[in-house]
Amino acid sequence: MNKSINAAVYEKHGNPADVLQIESRPWPVPAADEAVVKMRAAPINPADLNQIEGKYPVRPELPATPGFEGAGVVVELGAEVKSLTTGALVILPHNVGTWRDAVAVKAEELVVVPDGIAPVQAAMLKINPLTAWRLLHDYVDLQKGDWLIQNAANSAAGRDVIQIAHELAYKTVNIVRRAELIDELRAEGGDIVLIDGESLREDVKNATRGASIRLGLNSVGGDSALRLANCLVPGGTLVSFGAMSLQPLKIPTGLLIFKDLRFRGIWINKWYDNATPSERMEAFRPLFEMARRGLLKTRVEKAYPLSEVKAAVAHAAQSKRSGKIILEFE
Amino acid sequence: MNKSINAAVYEKHGNPADVLQIESRPWPVPAADEAVVKMRAAPINPADLNQIEGKYPVRPELPATPGFEGAGVVVELGAEVKSLTTGALVILPHNVGTWRDAVAVKAEELVVVPDGIAPVQAAMLKINPLTAWRLLHDYVDLQKGDWLIQNAANSAAGRDVIQIAHELAYKTVNIVRRAELIDELRAEGGDIVLIDGESLREDVKNATRGASIRLGLNSVGGDSALRLANCLVPGGTLVSFGAMSLQPLKIPTGLLIFKDLRFRGIWINKWYDNATPSERMEAFRPLFEMARRGLLKTRVEKAYPLSEVKAAVAHAAQSKRSGKIILEFE
Repeated sequence: MNKSINAAVYEKHGNPADVLQIESRPWPVPAADEAVVKMRAAPINPADLNQIEGKYPVRPELPATPGFEGAGVVVELGAEVKSLTTGALVILPHNVGTWRDAVAVKAEELVVVPDGIAPVQAAMLKINPLTAWRLLHDYVDLQKGDWLIQNAANSAAGRDVIQIAHELAYKTVNIVRRAELIDELRAEGGDIVLIDGESLREDVKNATRGASIRLGLNSVGGDSALRLANCLVPGGTLVSFGAMSLQPLKIPTGLLIFKDLRFRGIWINKWYDNATPSERMEAFRPLFEMARRGLLKTRVEKAYPLSEVKAAVAHAAQSKRSGKIILEFE
Repeated sequence: MNKSINAAVYEKHGNPADVLQIESRPWPVPAADEAVVKMRAAPINPADLNQIEGKYPVRPELPATPGFEGAGVVVELGAEVKSLTTGALVILPHNVGTWRDAVAVKAEELVVVPDGIAPVQAAMLKINPLTAWRLLHDYVDLQKGDWLIQNAANSAAGRDVIQIAHELAYKTVNIVRRAELIDELRAEGGDIVLIDGESLREDVKNATRGASIRLGLNSVGGDSALRLANCLVPGGTLVSFGAMSLQPLKIPTGLLIFKDLRFRGIWINKWYDNATPSERMEAFRPLFEMARRGLLKTRVEKAYPLSEVKAAVAHAAQSKRSGKIILEFE
């Protein structure tokens, strides 16, 4: 086994391609309750870039290794660990820094991935698919046939929402900005796909034949969030999980008072922190089932080795991409 | 008994002092399940003016008689009414149009006021004190000693919040815009009274010694609502019930995602509609108790007879007042 590993490290906040470096570190030694995980894949998510830039609400102690998400294989067990076996593919918790060859983690914080799911796909289940699952479960009590509406429906999380909603027999109105996405999202299971614009409310009403929509999912903010809110019935809830427009939500007070709309948000890392190990397992079970059937598949535009992390983060910062940028190890 | 009554009526929406007229109507005849109530007092609330202007989300069929709130005395009972006796002081539901000498109402919709509460005060319990009660009960599970914060604390509803919170041993941070209100609101039971401004968050932190505040009550909107939200702890709720600034809420998405703040609203007429008669009674019981002890007393700047309704609404539309404008009957 290697006597050292490589890890991405930044000593100060700044542009990721500038501040990241690769450093050599000793091979991790597990404590009694830890396992050593050899990383297989870790995506580069917007939150990773934000944290390196210092724009994330949680700042790590510096120097730090980035990476909120990833999957790897258990290669060594601490003396007291009974719940794991070596060779298991596991999903890492968000607070370890996944952009490194190997890491020692408390065994109880690892989620074991069943057979039949590729490490690259397992590495991307924790943030977007888990967010999508929680969005569909924690805010409005939906029943089969119920409608929801989301903007930025072509994002990774948006596509997961479409697929999970389709599985659960909820119906989705998907709002995008480019007409060429319509057929694509319909093919993935989106019931209705519409172009955002001033007439959205009427368009939605016509397309759904006036269906009652109680849940809106917003990852854009600004005017788009308001148009989404205006599509909801009284008592409906708009949950935000992103802010692509970088504009705050603007909420006319009448929507709160007279329409009883409720505005919430979700931060999946926080949910993950607060969940018990069994709650985490319970949340992942249906995601694993779907992933084994080839659903929730996140498209990868390019995989980089850790040694090319600067090129990888520069690529990930580009807005026009057809899929995720990931780090693949070995 | 009179053979006719006078009622305020408007045939089209517009400036209340222009469009309101007094018309003579036949004395109301009760259906079998109705009681005739002779009005004693009805306040002029902002919502009344908004509805006459056509700016309220519910537009009545025209011509209409305004008045969401009021109290009167039961003077006649329909054949099947067993639950009431003549002579009882009652609070009227919001959908009858209280600005008239007498009205026939379904008996089960009337809330009987116990002895010891003046009709003028009973007439003003349904909107502001009931709103304040619900604000303190329906959104955050408060315990004795817990803090809440509100803006426009010198409004009628704001003062009711102070008094009810004081009764329930919750602690209030009260935000106002004029220094001369500080002593007055402290005397009414406000634990802390502060002037709104850019340093509000720090001021609140200092004044409360960093207390955890989970409930914010907003009746201003715009920047004031945002400053209030910024005083709440993660997971806190801001409930809106007014929009004095006429500015929408501006909510940076981070407050929803990373701070898990929840934004709600209350419309007391809607709550009232949805409540069962026993829920209404249950809500009024503590308000009646407080009113009998001289609390929840709403200050009246001037009382007008119905015949002077034009002068009354013009007076009510002025912003600098020391109390409510009410209509008093007979």
